[in-house]
Amino acid sequence: MKTRIYNAKILDINETSVDITDGEIQITDDKITYVGEGQEGTFDKEINAEGNLIMPGFKNAHTHSAMTLFRSFADDLPLKSWLYDKIFPLEANLTEDFVYWGSRLAILEYLTSGMTANFDMYMKNDANVKASVDSGFRTVLCGSINNFGGTVDDMEAEYKKYNKEYNPDLSDLISYKYGFHAEYTTGREILEGMAGLAAKYKAPVYTHNSETKNEVQECIGRYNMTPTTFLDSIGMFEYGGGGYHCVYMTDEDIRICKEKKVHIVTNPGSNTKLASGIADICKYMDNGINIAIGTDGPASNNCLDMFREMFLVTGFQKIKLEDASACDAIDVLKMATINGAKAMELFDCETLKAGSKADLIMIDLHSPNMQPLNNIAKNIVYSGSKSNVLMTMVNGKILYNKGEFFVGASTEEIYAKVNEAIKELAKKASL
Amino acid sequence: MKTRIYNAKILDINETSVDITDGEIQITDDKITYVGEGQEGTFDKEINAEGNLIMPGFKNAHTHSAMTLFRSFADDLPLKSWLYDKIFPLEANLTEDFVYWGSRLAILEYLTSGMTANFDMYMKNDANVKASVDSGFRTVLCGSINNFGGTVDDMEAEYKKYNKEYNPDLSDLISYKYGFHAEYTTGREILEGMAGLAAKYKAPVYTHNSETKNEVQECIGRYNMTPTTFLDSIGMFEYGGGGYHCVYMTDEDIRICKEKKVHIVTNPGSNTKLASGIADICKYMDNGINIAIGTDGPASNNCLDMFREMFLVTGFQKIKLEDASACDAIDVLKMATINGAKAMELFDCETLKAGSKADLIMIDLHSPNMQPLNNIAKNIVYSGSKSNVLMTMVNGKILYNKGEFFVGASTEEIYAKVNEAIKELAKKASL
Repeated sequence: MKTRIYNAKILDINETSVDITDGEIQITDDKITYVGEGQEGTFDKEINAEGNLIMPGFKNAHTHSAMTLFRSFADDLPLKSWLYDKIFPLEANLTEDFVYWGSRLAILEYLTSGMTANFDMYMKNDANVKASVDSGFRTVLCGSINNFGGTVDDMEAEYKKYNKEYNPDLSDLISYKYGFHAEYTTGREILEGMAGLAAKYKAPVYTHNSETKNEVQECIGRYNMTPTTFLDSIGMFEYGGGGYHCVYMTDEDIRICKEKKVHIVTNPGSNTKLASGIADICKYMDNGINIAIGTDGPASNNCLDMFREMFLVTGFQKIKLEDASACDAIDVLKMATINGAKAMELFDCETLKAGSKADLIMIDLHSPNMQPLNNIAKNIVYSGSKSNVLMTMVNGKILYNKGEFFVGASTEEIYAKVNEAIKELAKKASL
Repeated sequence: MKTRIYNAKILDINETSVDITDGEIQITDDKITYVGEGQEGTFDKEINAEGNLIMPGFKNAHTHSAMTLFRSFADDLPLKSWLYDKIFPLEANLTEDFVYWGSRLAILEYLTSGMTANFDMYMKNDANVKASVDSGFRTVLCGSINNFGGTVDDMEAEYKKYNKEYNPDLSDLISYKYGFHAEYTTGREILEGMAGLAAKYKAPVYTHNSETKNEVQECIGRYNMTPTTFLDSIGMFEYGGGGYHCVYMTDEDIRICKEKKVHIVTNPGSNTKLASGIADICKYMDNGINIAIGTDGPASNNCLDMFREMFLVTGFQKIKLEDASACDAIDVLKMATINGAKAMELFDCETLKAGSKADLIMIDLHSPNMQPLNNIAKNIVYSGSKSNVLMTMVNGKILYNKGEFFVGASTEEIYAKVNEAIKELAKKASL
């Protein structure tokens, strides 16, 4: 399958710059084969971009997809009540089927927001994988072991099951990273087991880290160390990894992240809705840490929208530092794209160049909020909206185009299934 | 012209509740004539809402429409440099024509975001009015006198020109409120003149108020009073009025707003992008002040999107008060609709009831981010997006429907004009 998208503006992002050029992009099967002013060829499909923008898809570097089921079920509650009185009782009766449909709904939403990959930490990963493969969506799974579910052996088995090196039949769309829920939900024995897997497989490990003040204080109470220093002390980050949220990080925590190449995935939508706080993103950047962006789950956000997250990342830094020049939009655009790919180790999805996976989106420049074209890149971060996403292509396939989905199931079927699921879960939990 | 919208969910908002019922809404010319389960009639147009939601349009209670021209022209700059090095030099050469096309672009954006009225403070109001009337959009003008433009007599003349009581030929879509730019840009003599007009016409007066710490400090330096106490001391708010931004308000300021029925219009997108701070919205609410929401101008936001503003209003309160239960979504939905109408004195645009103006929107409930339907009202605030706006009706006329505009000019003409305008302004300002 050879596709050509012509008459486009092409926004590419690399470590040092964001460039916009007029031209075309050619795709063969799952890969980009050409980016430039245009070259001859025979194509199965030719798409006139009508002067709109092609750019790398957004990478949602931390989420819990299937929690779409719980969207707007429990809001405006104190954090503990939200979690213990609502979310945990609902989750108690989750089935594979419910996770599948919840994840399918999330994937529809990712596509409308121009996301081409998600880094998903949840339970019942077979259902999660099936949802992504059936939809044609790219998912990096993250282990979620904690005191209430899973063993270290389970995690090792997952690693082999969802890793193409060990399981050649696995879809190209799926990969897996070691992970555990959080220090505060996971006992020392399990954590040491996870550090053992990191050493055995020379693998990075990812986790929720320092999301709230309480969490940090409790860890200090337990180990006389912050979560980051404690986890580092048992060798968790010898091969890198990542921290989700990272709202409350000490200078020593930051030093460790820098030294051990631990990515920080910021989740400002969730951090504001759950009143967790504002992470020191500019300080982390100044220390050379790779910052990516995630939506967190839709029960705590409540949407899966990279445009909202991008605005919040820069807006929160400006307001926290009382400096309107803090956290330039271009840095934020990198976080949402190339930095996310790095954090998820999707090394072939980083930029729009020949040889990369064709994970890309088309942005409508003929929309009121993208006009005038004073600065297209800044328009995306400061005035962009999911309403500007015309097309989302994952692995060379168009999964979303101008309001239509091509994901192997109808939206109405997916909507019906998720509404049934939450009704049943609420009934079982007497909520 | 008689229109019927059936097979709808109807969300109505009044002072005490938000209700959603299944039914239909009937419109004759510019007014709603019926809301309920359905009644017989003959109609020129029948619209099947397909189970989607009809709700009152959002009211953008503070903006500077024509500043769309400057969107993303100057970002990530300190406030003073942004204003003095970029915006003021660009504005120096504004023409009526440029204001007209800039305002027309803003109106397109308002429509896509489900806004049915704006409260606009800018210069060259004839052009502003023409843009609204040509588009069919509802605009409340706000006077903008300051030391650099206008006299008190000019304001009185504007009041009579844009007020149907004095000018019966004026379009129903236009009204006018007394206003001045801000205490810090307007000398005492002018301010006393404006207070005189308020007394003469028993009229409310609106202004930017206490947007930044500096502004408050400077006023205390000048008058030994905060802006609110000083303005009150010269009789500015004897007939009410409003303050835009109101980020830094003392208890005495709050007491005055309550006593004098001064509305507060919050602008969180602008306040974060310009690093101004977070207003104490919950405290103002607790004191019984009417809170409305505005986008501010698109040079400082940079978009005109009520969904973004609604999320920011509640998110900022939660994070500031470190309380996830602060600022309930339902209160925010009221701010964006009925409270805005009250602040703008659009008393016939407050709710969806027979006799009210037909200023309403259709929200797509068949979108991934609006599913499942656990709580439709909270979905709108927490996960809603302008991508969910299917239709926007102002004064009984559909101005936007599923991506198409019906505003008497093509989008391509408007885009061409604004791009030409900013190029010429930048050239003249050597920017």
